Amino acid sequence: MAVYAKPLARLIDELRKLPGIGQKTAQRLAFFLIGESDESVRSLASAIVEAKDKISYCSKCFNLTDIDPCNICGDSTRDKSLICVVEEPKDIIALEKTRSYKGMYHVLHGAIAPLEGIGPGELRVKELITRLTEQVQEVILATDPNVEGEATAMYLARLIKPLDIKVTRIAHGMPVGGDLEYVDEVTLTKALEGRREM
Amino acid sequence: MAVYAKPLARLIDELRKLPGIGQKTAQRLAFFLIGESDESVRSLASAIVEAKDKISYCSKCFNLTDIDPCNICGDSTRDKSLICVVEEPKDIIALEKTRSYKGMYHVLHGAIAPLEGIGPGELRVKELITRLTEQVQEVILATDPNVEGEATAMYLARLIKPLDIKVTRIAHGMPVGGDLEYVDEVTLTKALEGRREM
Repeated sequence: MAVYAKPLARLIDELRKLPGIGQKTAQRLAFFLIGESDESVRSLASAIVEAKDKISYCSKCFNLTDIDPCNICGDSTRDKSLICVVEEPKDIIALEKTRSYKGMYHVLHGAIAPLEGIGPGELRVKELITRLTEQVQEVILATDPNVEGEATAMYLARLIKPLDIKVTRIAHGMPVGGDLEYVDEVTLTKALEGRREM
Repeated sequence: MAVYAKPLARLIDELRKLPGIGQKTAQRLAFFLIGESDESVRSLASAIVEAKDKISYCSKCFNLTDIDPCNICGDSTRDKSLICVVEEPKDIIALEKTRSYKGMYHVLHGAIAPLEGIGPGELRVKELITRLTEQVQEVILATDPNVEGEATAMYLARLIKPLDIKVTRIAHGMPVGGDLEYVDEVTLTKALEGRREM
């Protein structure tokens, strides 16, 4: 029985290892790549190798970076008394887009999830604690507003409060532009609890 | 404003060029790759380049191959009097899986779609006609059973019939294991029209 030519079969196999890519998508991507120009295919391959070679974790905040310390940790204009704790590097991008935060970050690389065997030991918690010198006045917990993120925030709050450092949690509430009718009840409850005088 | 480190931003940009991969998926894939072992990342990159370098179209049937003519065209045990016309290389894989067809193939690389500007000139039609020597007794049109595939089959039938070669179309009907209740009316009509005596 004829199957795909070997180099094609190998490429499909390799693409299937990527998260969320099944057999059909891998085939589609492989056919697409073979139809592309030599130049653009080599450009993709070299981007993969280059990113793997040059990107590593910042030794301070564990963000992805090509220099150590990263741009943010190395920026002398930023407020070193504030550390915002996030789950993933992409959360930093989201926060930076707001242009409203000028403190430091710390990436946990996950959240506490006992069912998946992820405890504080699997996260960059110890590294966060060692960063809490006298200079740090506030730790903002910006883990995701879901079960794992809340559990992680609770855990960190209990750990950090005894060190006499202010610990805050990002606000829960209605998303801007949201519709009361369609928001879930937990969010609405949090929005009521967090109400402010106008 | 901080953004992704340059090699990471470049990788995300390259991944976004792939079909069906948007910004979020490209980010997810890039983070995944950076977390993978050096070996497996290099293996993916080399598979991409190798496939692009070694895979090309068979000069006879236009299937994807790493040798020319391809395994099927070069197989002396196959029936050279039969040519099965398909739209894409992956259709050959599907037909070969049935283990019931032992003739040759011809890949059009698409179907006639005037709205997308794809006419017979954009497909491997001319190359099919030049293959129709005295040896060929039947051309099986196995383009997809949709508007473009039917139009392509009609076009090819009109072109080939005057050459005194038998032209057939794969049967339409109920899929095996299908449910009468859930099949669409066009398929059911075709299934009735194509009924056979038992």
